[in-house]
Amino acid sequence: MKLSSLGEFGLIDFIQKLAARQSPSVMIGIGDDAAALKIATSSILLATTDMLLEDVHFDLSFTDYYSLGWKSAAVNLSDIAAMGGIPRFCLTSLGIPSSVSVEQIKDFYRGFSAVLRIHRVVLVGGDTCLSREKLVVNVVVLGESKKIQIIARTGAEPGDGIFVTGTLGDSAAGLDLLRTRANSRKQGPWEKKLTEKHLRPTPRVEWGIKIARSRCAHAMIDTSDGLSSDLAHICEKSGVGAQIYPEDLPCSRALHLAEDRLGKSPTQYALSGGEDYELLFTAPPRYREKLKTLGVPLSEIGEITRSKKLLLVDRSGIKRPLVPNGYDHFARS
Amino acid sequence: MKLSSLGEFGLIDFIQKLAARQSPSVMIGIGDDAAALKIATSSILLATTDMLLEDVHFDLSFTDYYSLGWKSAAVNLSDIAAMGGIPRFCLTSLGIPSSVSVEQIKDFYRGFSAVLRIHRVVLVGGDTCLSREKLVVNVVVLGESKKIQIIARTGAEPGDGIFVTGTLGDSAAGLDLLRTRANSRKQGPWEKKLTEKHLRPTPRVEWGIKIARSRCAHAMIDTSDGLSSDLAHICEKSGVGAQIYPEDLPCSRALHLAEDRLGKSPTQYALSGGEDYELLFTAPPRYREKLKTLGVPLSEIGEITRSKKLLLVDRSGIKRPLVPNGYDHFARS
Repeated sequence: MKLSSLGEFGLIDFIQKLAARQSPSVMIGIGDDAAALKIATSSILLATTDMLLEDVHFDLSFTDYYSLGWKSAAVNLSDIAAMGGIPRFCLTSLGIPSSVSVEQIKDFYRGFSAVLRIHRVVLVGGDTCLSREKLVVNVVVLGESKKIQIIARTGAEPGDGIFVTGTLGDSAAGLDLLRTRANSRKQGPWEKKLTEKHLRPTPRVEWGIKIARSRCAHAMIDTSDGLSSDLAHICEKSGVGAQIYPEDLPCSRALHLAEDRLGKSPTQYALSGGEDYELLFTAPPRYREKLKTLGVPLSEIGEITRSKKLLLVDRSGIKRPLVPNGYDHFARS
Repeated sequence: MKLSSLGEFGLIDFIQKLAARQSPSVMIGIGDDAAALKIATSSILLATTDMLLEDVHFDLSFTDYYSLGWKSAAVNLSDIAAMGGIPRFCLTSLGIPSSVSVEQIKDFYRGFSAVLRIHRVVLVGGDTCLSREKLVVNVVVLGESKKIQIIARTGAEPGDGIFVTGTLGDSAAGLDLLRTRANSRKQGPWEKKLTEKHLRPTPRVEWGIKIARSRCAHAMIDTSDGLSSDLAHICEKSGVGAQIYPEDLPCSRALHLAEDRLGKSPTQYALSGGEDYELLFTAPPRYREKLKTLGVPLSEIGEITRSKKLLLVDRSGIKRPLVPNGYDHFARS
């Protein structure tokens, strides 16, 4: 079915029905000039927005619309998780080329809503319009937090341990698999694990809340650009340096199994692969034991230093500079 | 200067400096995973987002970047004004083709900030990325309001007068002038008034707040799609109809002067021309005198009816149907 048959207001109707699970916090949701929302009186409001552009952030030749919707929601929730906040509301804008079908757009919103439902986030507004050529997605997530529990990028202190949730590098390896493999060949289970991590990442919302409530962490960020770059952001904002122990980087079994196929080591993926959407934070060593009780899979991978350098230090004590391979949108163009 | 020379983080630095006027309500602004913001404990949070796409919402052949920035901010503030709210914070995402220069993007942000400054709104976050082909803008505005003062689209009642601020039709006439005239010819003052209204609309924030505080209005919307469509939105949401008195539509002297050149009557422009960003609201007739004391230029242009029809009723009492010529993004494609 063509979008022109459904029409803009038909699409808005569909979205409104999908978003129907309203919460008592939503005074006015989709369909007015602005949403009207209640947040707890003692809360600080958190707000984040991310734009996802076709052929820049996603490639429709190997990304289905459900996954694209999923990921668009997930990467924004991940930013709230990285503050230790609770995501509450969401607004999404879509610029849709006329070649896209109604079924595809509905799949996008189904994937999108699936993530919102898991994390009890309500879709309260947005914008839908025609795009001349490429698909354009913009998502806003509003969350809340107690003031004392917010974890910025700025608080890292020399001596802090550097911790990361889950495993690193899977998403970048998954992307390499998606880019290089013939779509027709059946995926093995380890391949599927890697490509899934790329296409449908899990925002670490519950873990972020647990870490925030424990009040152990000094600084936190989500790993969207890759460990080396994200760590560099924390160090720059906090005015510190860091050393990372490459042997301690948490790499999945799937990533090890992919090494032969992809010709790149798990450590390389873990250091520079982006889009894992894990949480990277620093905490004083005295909280090591307390952190173990949180029920969050954590690895301690390094230490914050007074010297502003970023270093890799292996078990034999050899130090090498860790160069952030940050993605600069404009430098690449 | 090319954007690739400035780089993504150079651009973010520029934006951060431009946005430096922070308010005590901003705990964390640009540069972290999410902004952390305080709103008054007794307030309801308002949230709106609008996407503006090149060659759909704006045409760079006659829109300078300063005006584009101005308008991108203005149309979003207008949505908060249409709820009777106070805009407070803003996040903006930009997808920028590599052909755009640093100076052009800086002009965009200068125009954008000019509007924010007038209305004391703080830029607290956003996203900047490369776009493959077209310029993409997405803006989020967060505002606040007392619960009792929020004016939705849903409250119009039979017998309510229909009021509109300022004048109607100027923006659409301005757009026609921009589209048809040779750019080289010098603009006369009335032409300039019309094109300015199109390129740099004024969001009616102060007027919206005055109307909300007066508690006279039952329903309100901003005139973005054109009077007939915006009135149809109010009527549909409120389950009512309306009759409009075409002779009472407020048209500027400039719009009258443009009639010969453009071959379209002021009334036609006023009924169906979009993007004026005036406020359209309904209020019981008993508040007529109170509304006059607000210091807001208002015209009473019709009446809400129980019958769900939309009608034009002229002075001789002849009734004609008023057909909303709403812009449906997908129907047109």
